[in-house]
Amino acid sequence: MKALVFEAGRAAVRVRDVPEPRARRGYALVRVLLSGICNTDLELRRGYHGFRGVPGHEFVGVVEGPAKSRWLGKRVVGEINLGCGRCGRCREGLARHCARRKALGILGHPGAHAGLLTLPEMNLREVPSGLSDEEAVFTEPLAAACEILDQVDVARGCRAAVLGPGKLGRLVAQVLEDAGADVSLLGRRGRARRSSFDLVVEATGSPAGMPRALELVRPRGTIVWKSTHHGPAVFDAAPLVVSEITVVGSRCGRFEPALERLSERRVRVEHLISADFPLARAAAALKEAARPGVLKVLLRP
Amino acid sequence: MKALVFEAGRAAVRVRDVPEPRARRGYALVRVLLSGICNTDLELRRGYHGFRGVPGHEFVGVVEGPAKSRWLGKRVVGEINLGCGRCGRCREGLARHCARRKALGILGHPGAHAGLLTLPEMNLREVPSGLSDEEAVFTEPLAAACEILDQVDVARGCRAAVLGPGKLGRLVAQVLEDAGADVSLLGRRGRARRSSFDLVVEATGSPAGMPRALELVRPRGTIVWKSTHHGPAVFDAAPLVVSEITVVGSRCGRFEPALERLSERRVRVEHLISADFPLARAAAALKEAARPGVLKVLLRP
Repeated sequence: MKALVFEAGRAAVRVRDVPEPRARRGYALVRVLLSGICNTDLELRRGYHGFRGVPGHEFVGVVEGPAKSRWLGKRVVGEINLGCGRCGRCREGLARHCARRKALGILGHPGAHAGLLTLPEMNLREVPSGLSDEEAVFTEPLAAACEILDQVDVARGCRAAVLGPGKLGRLVAQVLEDAGADVSLLGRRGRARRSSFDLVVEATGSPAGMPRALELVRPRGTIVWKSTHHGPAVFDAAPLVVSEITVVGSRCGRFEPALERLSERRVRVEHLISADFPLARAAAALKEAARPGVLKVLLRP
Repeated sequence: MKALVFEAGRAAVRVRDVPEPRARRGYALVRVLLSGICNTDLELRRGYHGFRGVPGHEFVGVVEGPAKSRWLGKRVVGEINLGCGRCGRCREGLARHCARRKALGILGHPGAHAGLLTLPEMNLREVPSGLSDEEAVFTEPLAAACEILDQVDVARGCRAAVLGPGKLGRLVAQVLEDAGADVSLLGRRGRARRSSFDLVVEATGSPAGMPRALELVRPRGTIVWKSTHHGPAVFDAAPLVVSEITVVGSRCGRFEPALERLSERRVRVEHLISADFPLARAAAALKEAARPGVLKVLLRP
């Protein structure tokens, strides 16, 4: 099958033939219909995690095997963390924090920018029939946006700022608005009054995001930190301590709240699609996805 | 009266005669019995806040004026933040987060390393008769330690690490133990298992504290950030985001919980006193306080 492969060093990005994956016991084999390029893919290419292999963790697909699977023929999306299944965190339902986890297209498990992928059946979620492939492929990033609601109380009327009007930032803004918050989505030059927000979501993907967030949040307010970027964070921490700010790291989320919001049209995603490339042109698609102002770029195997 | 004065530049630390302060309307004039040197005093001397004037914010004293004050003759400690009294935060009882606040010996109001000081009467708390001056002078730093309990749920059996076995770290460790936590107080070389603590309190006063805290805290655990230091924090933020850590900035606290714990002997402080200097020898006292391993140094006007 064809797959996008990141090889050692940053120059080598190419689509080539790789052996088809085989589904281990408890796993399903999924034919990918559509995959989405995430900023994390771009970071992996820049060296984050020292990643090599097939990237991609946002997808919608159809289960092709094994032959006896109750999932056969179903259209699915899939949670990306593969826990060990035995530790305390896995038993609590927190496989996404298992210390020995693998992660689809990120850590130790080949990803979705390929013709086929495998995932444990327990990771799969059926896509409701009312959703298009182009909507369903947003389930994973939307789940990451919804994760904020599992971590922080967002009261009706809460003054929220979302820093970074990219793909994730725009999903977060919709999720917070749907929850009743009064949301400002701010770009690099967006003006806003200092110390005026109850909640600031840092989704810039840049080391400059945190100092900005600290300027905007009110004393005793909350910053949700979404960006992972290669290289260290550098900021003056005194305002964080003095104003008793709470900073909450936030990553992947449960898929159910995302599928629910998509199905009920409480969050709209079609306008976030900037381009759609055949998988064979993945190198060009990655270049496009990295251009400022470009939102979601999809790959079609 | 004699007072310790920080003048422009780091070299000039001296005790000299300054005019006695006068109590404005609503303020009390307090004769200082004992003041404590805090790390913040040492940071102010290094340039934190561009401070000049009389430092000192930990004290116990006796009210000397005005003549009609209901506080006259009482032995008191005092909350250090002077709010504007009119803004929303002041009205909520959060003068310590008022945007226009002054702070005793830190920001716009002369401090306690002097013969006399003034404070709004509403900032004063009477010292219970069972407490010695040497105990009462710990009220302010102990309140800062107790603040953690107002911010974070510390369940019985909670596995807590306190980084930084200095004055504040040792107070925090006692407060958490008293609350039922299982506490490890860790110095620079203290060994502990990675990702094993529910709660880590960063009280090292050093930029190295945060990366260490991130190593020790479990996924979805909490770090309380107590250190303010001159210069930026630099650390790899990816573990914070990926493991969904919550970081809570924590500063000053209410005095009541501190006085209660001192009175009931649930927290002991006498063993934290390393030295006691006359105010006239404050320069030597500051030098002593900055030596590694030295805990609380007191000044006696």
